[in-house]
Amino acid sequence: MRTLSLFTIIDFLGVIAGALGGALAARRSQIHQYDLVGVLGLGSVAALGGGIIRDILIQRGPPLALLDVRYLYAALGGALVGLFFGSGLGPRTQRLLIVLDAAALSLFAVAGATRALNSGLSMLPALLLGAITAVGGGALRDVLSGRTPKVFEGGELYAIVAAIAAAIFLLCTLIGITAGTATGVSVSTGFLLRLLGLRFGWQTKAIRSSSLL
Amino acid sequence: MRTLSLFTIIDFLGVIAGALGGALAARRSQIHQYDLVGVLGLGSVAALGGGIIRDILIQRGPPLALLDVRYLYAALGGALVGLFFGSGLGPRTQRLLIVLDAAALSLFAVAGATRALNSGLSMLPALLLGAITAVGGGALRDVLSGRTPKVFEGGELYAIVAAIAAAIFLLCTLIGITAGTATGVSVSTGFLLRLLGLRFGWQTKAIRSSSLL
Amino acid sequence: MRTLSLFTIIDFLGVIAGALGGALAARRSQIHQYDLVGVLGLGSVAALGGGIIRDILIQRGPPLALLDVRYLYAALGGALVGLFFGSGLGPRTQRLLIVLDAAALSLFAVAGATRALNSGLSMLPALLLGAITAVGGGALRDVLSGRTPKVFEGGELYAIVAAIAAAIFLLCTLIGITAGTATGVSVSTGFLLRLLGLRFGWQTKAIRSSSLL
Repeated sequence: MRTLSLFTIIDFLGVIAGALGGALAARRSQIHQYDLVGVLGLGSVAALGGGIIRDILIQRGPPLALLDVRYLYAALGGALVGLFFGSGLGPRTQRLLIVLDAAALSLFAVAGATRALNSGLSMLPALLLGAITAVGGGALRDVLSGRTPKVFEGGELYAIVAAIAAAIFLLCTLIGITAGTATGVSVSTGFLLRLLGLRFGWQTKAIRSSSLL
Repeated sequence: MRTLSLFTIIDFLGVIAGALGGALAARRSQIHQYDLVGVLGLGSVAALGGGIIRDILIQRGPPLALLDVRYLYAALGGALVGLFFGSGLGPRTQRLLIVLDAAALSLFAVAGATRALNSGLSMLPALLLGAITAVGGGALRDVLSGRTPKVFEGGELYAIVAAIAAAIFLLCTLIGITAGTATGVSVSTGFLLRLLGLRFGWQTKAIRSSSLL
Repeated sequence: MRTLSLFTIIDFLGVIAGALGGALAARRSQIHQYDLVGVLGLGSVAALGGGIIRDILIQRGPPLALLDVRYLYAALGGALVGLFFGSGLGPRTQRLLIVLDAAALSLFAVAGATRALNSGLSMLPALLLGAITAVGGGALRDVLSGRTPKVFEGGELYAIVAAIAAAIFLLCTLIGITAGTATGVSVSTGFLLRLLGLRFGWQTKAIRSSSLL
């Protein structure tokens, strides 16, 4: 029960942080001049898009983000904070956002994989849907900003961390570990991996036609 | 009965106008050289995309645009007009298109909110789905043209009018006004608001990182 | 039975070829520096995207690509080949890819139309869904690469071949020809048409505002 509550808190904090980050990114765009609709829209998409894509693929009714209105409030709330206080965010708040995002990245991946398994899908699709839940919001925001998803480009470990978190969770499930423990193990591993990657500047390699990997 | 027929007429005229507008925009693109497939495709997407996104999110079966073939005919018909007569459209026809688009903007928003309510969703999701129905087609056309949706950028009041029309409709429903009257009141208010906004050049403000709103 | 097996073989070879082609295109991008995630992601999207869009629109449960894991293996396998051996592909392999893509284009279109009919949709939506199945993967890959779908732009006959294959299949069905024969006739016609178009450089005309078609 206590762990479940903790997951719920991370979940909503992750949505708020995602929306705030998305709204700030929209404000900072050098190319586009987003208005109220753009900042709130791109913020909400960044926060909720991954789960919405997952639920559209799973097809077991409307996305959770539309059924449980608290997700919408969290997303709009985070985006509104970005709209009003965006330029005044200090470095400490921005570090907090990065930590929240790292926690949410893994939790979203594991939650997505869980939901996929519960819908009767098998391991590999569940792994993919976990990763899509975690990175889909940012990717959809990028597409709606007229650019290729940053998650596809060489740089920070991001989608790979999400996939690893989902994979650890699925392995734990496979060997009979209870869902609560499996979630705890996989989310905290992913969280640490993401923070370590940021701390030590781990990068994925860009794959060019000339390179032989 | 008579009002319902009027709504149906606006609905189909809106689809035709949306497809025609989308086809003309594709022809006029300075960046891309769209062919037959591009002009018909982008025209149809502009006209039907919002309703299709809404129905994908609501998940109560295939989109209305695929079930009721009249929508497809209306969209393809409008896009074909844009394909054949596009360059010959006089200023009067273009003004008519703007008026039809203004009427359709509000009607699509209210129809989308209605459909969301009927699917058991609550007020805030219904408001969002109404706005998405109204602006989603244009946004999807923009994404398929490789650009960020214009609806997110500072400029004419557009998504906000759709949201206001949907909000008025939902408020009317909330206080017990019948669906027909609520639709009439909200669609005509949105229609007037859109035309007034165009007439007086009402604009949304671009939100930059430096500005404090 | 034998023809069905042949279709299944073309289907999976088409997925592999699509993923390989998508992965190679991602590697060759002049604009973006895709990493492992980008190359595998864009490859898989190119291969499976069309069927996924079709199944999202039909809404009869999760996409086939998530239910039947062999599609995922085929797509990831093709993309992995592109990841590891991409720069070493000789001209003969590239010609083979073009032939496989031509066969898959028509087969995907006919398979999409079949699935749409089986879901109770009528002829025109089935035709559209057939074409979307065939060209949707490439289009989605283009959108995720931050560009307008190539299928909308003037150039090689591609979507039109898919639409013709689906149309022939639907006509055959309409006049009572069995599904197996109808599939054989329509897929081979589309296949030939695509190869002839490539051989003789058939192009669609770009439609500009100034032109009168």
